[in-house]
Amino acid sequence: MTHFIAVSTQVIGLVAGFLTSVSMLPQLIKTLKEKKAGDVSFFMLIVLISGVSLWIYYGVLKDDKPIIITNCISVVLNVAVASLKLKYKS
Amino acid sequence: MTHFIAVSTQVIGLVAGFLTSVSMLPQLIKTLKEKKAGDVSFFMLIVLISGVSLWIYYGVLKDDKPIIITNCISVVLNVAVASLKLKYKS
Repeated sequence: MTHFIAVSTQVIGLVAGFLTSVSMLPQLIKTLKEKKAGDVSFFMLIVLISGVSLWIYYGVLKDDKPIIITNCISVVLNVAVASLKLKYKS
Repeated sequence: MTHFIAVSTQVIGLVAGFLTSVSMLPQLIKTLKEKKAGDVSFFMLIVLISGVSLWIYYGVLKDDKPIIITNCISVVLNVAVASLKLKYKS
């Protein structure tokens, strides 16, 4: 029973990590389609990219692969949205 | 030395968690100022709110206060941005 609880907790953590990492994907798709991101805060993206990069470093220090992998996905998506925002600004 | 490494790893995790939780604050301020959020993906906010809510549940299951607190800040900020997006749509 304790083992079952530990496993289900881990599954919840994995699903939570998956959702928070892929959350920027709909934003990326929307921005690619509409070719504008004027209402998206660039400072939000910078703070997010800094935080997510630190999470990767934390994952490396703790040798925690799920943290490294999910945050690597996040950083790629966030950098892509930030680049598109800069591109469509001009 | 091992203790020092453990403490500095924890500090990195706390700073990372702080940055990712408050990242939506610049978006909230920008949306409040400009009274529009047409370019912000609503689906992104929904996925993010679902993920962050699951993180809170994960934190409760593991009795991990930093996870609970940082993700509660996130959920409040994200729900605020989502509400403003709906408000300024009409």
